[in-house]
Amino acid sequence: MRIALIGGTGDIGQGLALRWAFDTDHEVIIGSRDPEKARGKAAEYETELDSLGVSRSINGFKNGMAAERADVVVLAVPPFHVRDTIEDVADRLSDVDVLVTPAVGMNRDESGFHYKPPKAGSVSELVAETVPDDVPVVGAFHNLSADRLADLELDIEQDTLLVGDDDDAKEMVVRLAEEIDGLRALDAGGIENSAEVESMTPLLINLALENEGMHDVGVRFE
Amino acid sequence: MRIALIGGTGDIGQGLALRWAFDTDHEVIIGSRDPEKARGKAAEYETELDSLGVSRSINGFKNGMAAERADVVVLAVPPFHVRDTIEDVADRLSDVDVLVTPAVGMNRDESGFHYKPPKAGSVSELVAETVPDDVPVVGAFHNLSADRLADLELDIEQDTLLVGDDDDAKEMVVRLAEEIDGLRALDAGGIENSAEVESMTPLLINLALENEGMHDVGVRFE
Repeated sequence: MRIALIGGTGDIGQGLALRWAFDTDHEVIIGSRDPEKARGKAAEYETELDSLGVSRSINGFKNGMAAERADVVVLAVPPFHVRDTIEDVADRLSDVDVLVTPAVGMNRDESGFHYKPPKAGSVSELVAETVPDDVPVVGAFHNLSADRLADLELDIEQDTLLVGDDDDAKEMVVRLAEEIDGLRALDAGGIENSAEVESMTPLLINLALENEGMHDVGVRFE
Repeated sequence: MRIALIGGTGDIGQGLALRWAFDTDHEVIIGSRDPEKARGKAAEYETELDSLGVSRSINGFKNGMAAERADVVVLAVPPFHVRDTIEDVADRLSDVDVLVTPAVGMNRDESGFHYKPPKAGSVSELVAETVPDDVPVVGAFHNLSADRLADLELDIEQDTLLVGDDDDAKEMVVRLAEEIDGLRALDAGGIENSAEVESMTPLLINLALENEGMHDVGVRFE
């Protein structure tokens, strides 16, 4: 399967790219607005994997070309770039099996981080509203620490929560998630349940700030 | 220490009453609007504990009397009774060391459960606004399954998240929480961070509904 990480030069994109390249045989493609940056990061990830004894070819492209070549597109851009990025690649999404959104809107004040969804209700709902009608959307990977994903010598042993209204697309993302060693995917229901899933991201950051030894904290449901 | 569970005849009140009576030497007091009901439930809990070989005296009172006798008051009432209940007992809270709020506002639609905070921003913030100024408020125990707490033969092995602006009061609730076997308390910051903590309750219910074997699911941060 071909997985394109649009915004794959950012931290969560890097983490997912490295894990899929390290743990699976899927082809990993890096997208960026700037194709030079995409190629540069792809080469960095290859070097990182090579240093761990894994030889993988990772290619970088401009976002639209990355999306066009992929079966699965992960929209790993900041929440305020979600709409622009989708509009930029919309006509390249016709053959995509699923668009995955891990972004979360947050702001920060003296007390800590707070969930700040867009008017659509959540980033997942904004994405679902913005993509062409025939592209299934799944929210996933919101609550994973990008730094922990990107450090391939660390165990994950965490859960990620999925929301989406298309069962086949969700099942595909469950499989892709669980091919990452130590990651378990749980179903949090339809896209309308996404605000509660996205809210966990500022909560995890607050726990990391307030409790010793909880840097890069994740979650297990049991 | 004397712990009053206002609304201690409901499910989360019952769970906490049974666990503190079973695992600690603190005096547990049950409050209700109806003192007969409070006494009846207190007697039920004594019988339950007795059947497990633990002889404890639990007393029931009208809410105001229960609050007046307590060092710690847990406001285990539904969110729509929070304001009325506080106003009802406000003049009995002068000697209370901490008021604990575990309530969460939710609604349900076809997709699942959704976080529905009061206008104050969260139930914890509503409680903090409503209590007399000298009563410290701590939000805690939102994300525990009442059924799992109430079944004393089940292990907890879960985390609970605390929010509050008074460090001494929060430290007291950390100790009380961790005296329950298997329960770990984590600091989620000030009361302004409470919405993200309360949001986990509908999320946990959605996970229980959508995933097999997750009835009464809880959470561990690691």
